[in-house]
This record gives sequence, structure tokens and C-alpha cells, in this order.
Amino acid sequence: MDKTPPACDTLISASRLLTQNRDRAVLEDAALSVSRGVIQAVGPRADFASIRAERTLRLGDALLMPGLVNAHTHSSMTFLRGLADDLPLMDWLRGHVFPVDRGLTEEIISLGCLLGCAEMTRTGTTTFADMYLREDAVMETVDRCGMRVLAGEGIFAFPSPAYPDPAAALDLVRGQAARWKGHSRVRVCVMPHSIYTTTPAILASCRDLAGELDLPLHIHLAETPEETANCLAATGQRPVAYCHSLGLLGKDTAIAHGVDLTEEDMDLLAKAGVAVVHNPRSNMKLASGVAPAPDLLARGVSLGLGTDGAASNNSLNLFAEMSACALLHKISRKNPTLMPAQTVLDMATLGSAAALGWTGLGRLAPGCPADLIALDLSSPNLQPLYNPASQLVYAASGFEVILSMVEGRILYQNGRFTGLDYPLLLREMEKIMAWVLRARG
Amino acid sequence: MDKTPPACDTLISASRLLTQNRDRAVLEDAALSVSRGVIQAVGPRADFASIRAERTLRLGDALLMPGLVNAHTHSSMTFLRGLADDLPLMDWLRGHVFPVDRGLTEEIISLGCLLGCAEMTRTGTTTFADMYLREDAVMETVDRCGMRVLAGEGIFAFPSPAYPDPAAALDLVRGQAARWKGHSRVRVCVMPHSIYTTTPAILASCRDLAGELDLPLHIHLAETPEETANCLAATGQRPVAYCHSLGLLGKDTAIAHGVDLTEEDMDLLAKAGVAVVHNPRSNMKLASGVAPAPDLLARGVSLGLGTDGAASNNSLNLFAEMSACALLHKISRKNPTLMPAQTVLDMATLGSAAALGWTGLGRLAPGCPADLIALDLSSPNLQPLYNPASQLVYAASGFEVILSMVEGRILYQNGRFTGLDYPLLLREMEKIMAWVLRARG
Repeated sequence: MDKTPPACDTLISASRLLTQNRDRAVLEDAALSVSRGVIQAVGPRADFASIRAERTLRLGDALLMPGLVNAHTHSSMTFLRGLADDLPLMDWLRGHVFPVDRGLTEEIISLGCLLGCAEMTRTGTTTFADMYLREDAVMETVDRCGMRVLAGEGIFAFPSPAYPDPAAALDLVRGQAARWKGHSRVRVCVMPHSIYTTTPAILASCRDLAGELDLPLHIHLAETPEETANCLAATGQRPVAYCHSLGLLGKDTAIAHGVDLTEEDMDLLAKAGVAVVHNPRSNMKLASGVAPAPDLLARGVSLGLGTDGAASNNSLNLFAEMSACALLHKISRKNPTLMPAQTVLDMATLGSAAALGWTGLGRLAPGCPADLIALDLSSPNLQPLYNPASQLVYAASGFEVILSMVEGRILYQNGRFTGLDYPLLLREMEKIMAWVLRARG
Repeated sequence: MDKTPPACDTLISASRLLTQNRDRAVLEDAALSVSRGVIQAVGPRADFASIRAERTLRLGDALLMPGLVNAHTHSSMTFLRGLADDLPLMDWLRGHVFPVDRGLTEEIISLGCLLGCAEMTRTGTTTFADMYLREDAVMETVDRCGMRVLAGEGIFAFPSPAYPDPAAALDLVRGQAARWKGHSRVRVCVMPHSIYTTTPAILASCRDLAGELDLPLHIHLAETPEETANCLAATGQRPVAYCHSLGLLGKDTAIAHGVDLTEEDMDLLAKAGVAVVHNPRSNMKLASGVAPAPDLLARGVSLGLGTDGAASNNSLNLFAEMSACALLHKISRKNPTLMPAQTVLDMATLGSAAALGWTGLGRLAPGCPADLIALDLSSPNLQPLYNPASQLVYAASGFEVILSMVEGRILYQNGRFTGLDYPLLLREMEKIMAWVLRARG
């Protein structure tokens, strides 16, 4: 009989542990053990007394919780943060974004993504869904820095810096899917950009490719009333019905935004099992509209939370997003009981994980990936602590995070990034900024 | 001729210095000298080469800027943060707040205030306007911890823990005004709580007292449509007109909230020179309504920014408030160009200072009090830096603050509170939390 006590790679203890399990249990004086990137056990700290651990992290007065999941962003665009704000969409695109996009290199895309990864790990996000151009660069960057990503090449009807035409775009995705198949932290997704930048044929090909390769599909949909008007004019259908008619709506599909939705649209989404990713700060900043989040939840739709890109937010911080989400719906429907804290916290964890189709994320339980964060509860804005969910949604900034871990590997701890060379990144950002200002002219 | 180079107490240099002067100049590689709590000079760092300083703070890649001014809060209520959220107002008050209020002691008020001061100095606020019960305790606490406050005893028609009746309340304010007269950081204000908790006679007495003692006046006004309906039913007038008829509206008056305002109300406020303090996060969380901030600004009304109390926000962080302010008005009027970053930054600095009637705050210029903060620009969410105002309003969390100074004294620097015993405060909070949970039953 083996008398050796059970062993683990890492043992973490904290004054509170927020599980996001079925009961939404929050344990006091708790611990969690990790072995080979997977959570082995979660429970009262006393239960772990006899566990041998290669590394022990005693976090003290801290809240250990699942890493947040950013279900929609364009991480590479972080290099454009604050370049231009408070403008009508077309002035912003034509005067600032398009001139820069034309000169995009893979290096800029990588470094923009890396800055986004730094911001996300710093503020408690461990996984994100990403859509951009030359997404290979994003996947490689994320792989190196240790985060977790569901990544998709933005597929357009027109040429992009990554491909000459839509057929080549699909081939590119096919190659990416083959290259990253089986990777534990990097997954590929089919991401047609939107209905207004594609064609029915392209969307049908995307649907087929996703089916053939068993990949999820993610698309910007129903973001603004203008999109609806244009879709109606072009197809006679509203965006959701149009996608439905093309067979795009299914259990493996997530739509980003879902702002301009009718009751019928929502019924259709619910029936098809489509997940919706809500991006409240981007929708507010661009004045796109208010997504009917409470109505989607009432229909049982999986609702995730995303930051969108830093060019329209301007941060990739899910704590700010949770707060905006809760407050926006209360004021917009004049009902202070709407979107309570636990509901919003569920969106940023379990809901986003469901939107990515990534089982095991968004909660702390045995067998789940060890993707977790810890917040310093001694921060003045988190004192006193009556209700952890309330504190996380209404009072936390994300900068109370003292630990971010993905698959058992520490990516950020107490002011230090361990998955990337942050001082070097800062120097590179100086160069990119100078280039952007020249490119914009 | 004196050949000694000019001297100062403190010399501070930083890569950027945001002045909030008339031109809204942002200097690069700049410095600022302080002597006896007052800013002596501001300019390019090279100009300060020959200045002798007792203390030099080289902040490196940081943004030096005026300390933010929180123009409406109830700092002591910080001890109730997160006790109960997402409830209808009356359930919240009757089930959670009133049972606790009945047992309030001066010690709890002091410690709640001190926690609020810790949170504010941590997140870049150096001055606040405060209304609560037993405000003596707040003034003493603020005096000790080094912040700056405009403080007012909440005046009600009914007894409070601090006084048996309104006449006693006015005597209390008179005594406070005498006690703190001439204090450089603590000023007294006449603060009738609201029209619905006072009477015409009390409001008239408040007006007279403010006039007699040359004190500003601050009142909750036009916060909700219900307040308007009740005021109309009781007086035949809307809240602003009612206050005007009582002679309460003048250049030394600030109203908190100003949510439910007609065009005529706004014209009246503008004509009278009344300042309005906007509290967007509290208004959103309580679903009170959206204050017509853009219309007030268009009329030239001084518009400040406040957090309200932590029980309805739940943080005292003006960076979160700036962000909410900019986003709320864009979405609520479907116009992304509304409330641009610089306008919102002006509210949290110059606008709030005007609402407090406190000359010299909210900007960095020779002769102004040395109330300033610095943000670490290497924080990933502040990278790259194209536009400081955009970064502060849309991307900053407030936790990038590495220095908070009031009247030349450092209150917070690099993780350490220097104006208060923070570990002791945390221990006291444990006790208060236990008491609150018992009191609520």
C-alpha cells in the first residue's frame, strides 16, 4: 500500500474562494490544488494539510476565483487605444483607422496583441475570443505568453493583409485549424466578420467549414439599427433571420453584440441555441444601442461578456465591463433590481465560457483547467466585505488582481508579468506609436 | 544681491504634466515646485535645474495632474458598501439601512469616513464634499488624515443622532462654522438634506444661515421623478422652482443630482448661477434617471462630478465616475460625440472645484494649493499614450495612481498610506462589519 501523501504541483490558499459552481458557493479559509494544469481539489484549507505540494501560494486575505473570460475582443487593436475618440464612426474609420490598417505588419499585430494580453492578465482575464487580421500572429503570441484564446481570422468579401480573396481566407482558416489542432490553450474558430462585409456565399462557406472541421463560429451581428436597415434593404430580412436562413445559427454559434433585436429575433436565437456576447462599454461609447440582455437571459440564452477592441472601449478590462453591464440595464429600464451582481458575474465567467464553447472554464472545480485569479481583499474599495459578487461587480477595478494563472502557469503576480517581457513591450510600443502617428499623417 | 538659488519644499518631475489651465496644456518632461503647501512654479523640467529642493520626487514615466474633486459623497457610508444591492429603494432602506442607522456611533462614522478617505486618496481624489450625520466626526477625521473637505451636517426636519430638532441642527452648523473658520483644508457648508426631508421654514433658515456666515449651500435636488411628483403635489411647484421661490438658488449653491430637470428648470439654474453635481453611477444603479448634463453644459452651468455614497455606487472612485459619465450620455442620446473626454475631465477637476466654491483647486498653476496626483503611465491599460484626457476618462481605473498629495503633504505613495494607519483601519472594519450584521438582524 502506498503511504506517500497525495502530491500536487501547486497548492493555493486564500481567505475566500469563489467557486462559481452550481450553488455559487463561496468558501472561507479555503484551498485549491493543481496538478499538470488541472484543478485537482477545492475545499477547506484544513483538508489539504497532508498534501505535498511542489509550490505553495499562501495568498492570505485574498479572493481566489475563476479567471474571467472575455468573449469578444480584437486584442491587436490595443495599439490604437485612445488614438481618436468621441467621433462619428465614419470620421474615425476614414481619418484614423483605415490609413493605419493599410500598413499593418505582423509585428504590429503581435505587439498589439501582447499589450492586450498584458492588460487582460493584469486585470483578471485569462481567456479571450479574438477576431482580427493575420490571426496566426495572435495565436503564436498567445501561445508564447501563456494565455488561452479562441482565435479567428476575420473573413471579409474583400482582400485583407492576410489573404487576396475569401476563398484564400477559408484556406487560411483550414490551415490554422490543422496547425493548432489539439493545442490545449489555442483553439481556432471560423469568424466571418459580419453580414455587411461578406456575401451569402461566403457565409455559407463559413458555415460549411465550421461543420466540416467541427469548429465554432463567431460573427458580429445586429450591432446597430443601421446594420438592420441595410440588411433589410439588401435581403428583405433582419440580420438574425438572414443568418438563420443561411443555416448559420446553431449551438456552436456565438454572435457579438446582439443589440438591435426584436422579440422574434430573440426567440430564434434561443431556439437555435446561439450564444450572445454582450459588449456594453463599446455599445455605449459608439452609441450603438442597448442590447436586450435581460430578455435574452429570460429566454435562457447563453450570454457572455466582451470588451470589444481597445479602440472602442478603451480598455480590455472585464471588471469595468461587468460594472457597466449592471448599471446600463438598470438605468435603461429604470429598474434597480435588473441584472443583479451574481447574474453579471455569471456572464463574465460561465456565460462567456459557454459562448466560446469551451467546457470547464469559468469555474473552480476538480477536473477544470487551473485558470484562476486572486484579488487582494485588503484594497480599500473592497472593504468591508459583505458580499463577494457585489464587490466584484460594483466596487472592484480589476487592479486588485495579484495573481493570474492559466493552466497552472502563473502569468502575472504582484506587479510582475511572468509570461512576457513587459519592459521590452513598452519600448516596442513607443516605436509603434511613432509609426501610427506617421501613418495617419 | 542674493546669489542663493531659489528654494522649495518639494520638487516633482514627471514625463507628462496635465495642467488643466485655460489652454488645457499638457507639458512633456516637466516639473513642479511646491512651497508651504502651495504650487510655486510649473514648467519644463530643465527650468528647475537650479532650484534647491528639500525633497525631490522623480516620478519618471508618470502623468502629474490635479487631484480630482469628488463634489458629492457621504464618505461615512463606506462601511455599508455592498451590504445590499439590486433592491427597490424602500426595501433597501427599511431592511438594511434604517436598522443600522439607529445604532450609529461617532466611532463608526469616523471609521467609515476614514475608509472612504483611503479609497479616495488611493484612486486620485484629494478633495470631497461630504454630507452625513455627526459631521464633526468627518471633519476631524479628514483634518487628521490630511485630505481636503467641504463638510455639511445633513439637516432634516426630524431628529438625527446629532441633534434633537432642526433649530439645534442649525446651531450645530453655526458651531462647526466657528470651530473650523480659517482652516485651510476643512470648510463648512450648509447642507439641508433635501426638500422632501425638510420644510419651507427649515430651508429658509438654511438660506439665512448660509448668507449670514458666508457659507456655501448644498442640497440633494431633482434626483428622481418621484421627488418631482411629491413636490408638485405638496407645493404646486417643481423642485427647482420651489427652491427658487424660497431664495435658495444663488451663486454659492450647488445641487446634487439634478436628474429630473425641464428646460425651464435648467434656465433657472443657469440664470441663478447654481452649480450642479452629476452622480452618474449612483443614478444608474438606483435607476433614478439620466441627468441632462450636455444641456446644462450648453447653458454654461458649472457641472461637477460626484460619486454619491458607497452604498449606492459602490465605490468612491472618480475615474470610474468619469468613464460612466462619458459613456452614459453617448448611449442615452445615441450620439458618440457627446461628452468628449476633455469635457468630462474638466467636470472632475474644475467643474467640481467650482461646485464647491473652492478657488484654486482642480488645476496645477502657481499659487494654487499643491493638491495633485500622479499616475504610472507604464500600466498596460494606459499604453500607448496618444491622448492623456482620453486615457484618463476611458482607460484609467484610478489604481494607476502612485502619488496623492494635498497641500504639499503626501497622503498616498506607491502602495502606502501616509496619512492614516491602514492596517489598523482594516482591523476596525472587521469589527464594524460584525456589528452591522448583528444590527441588521
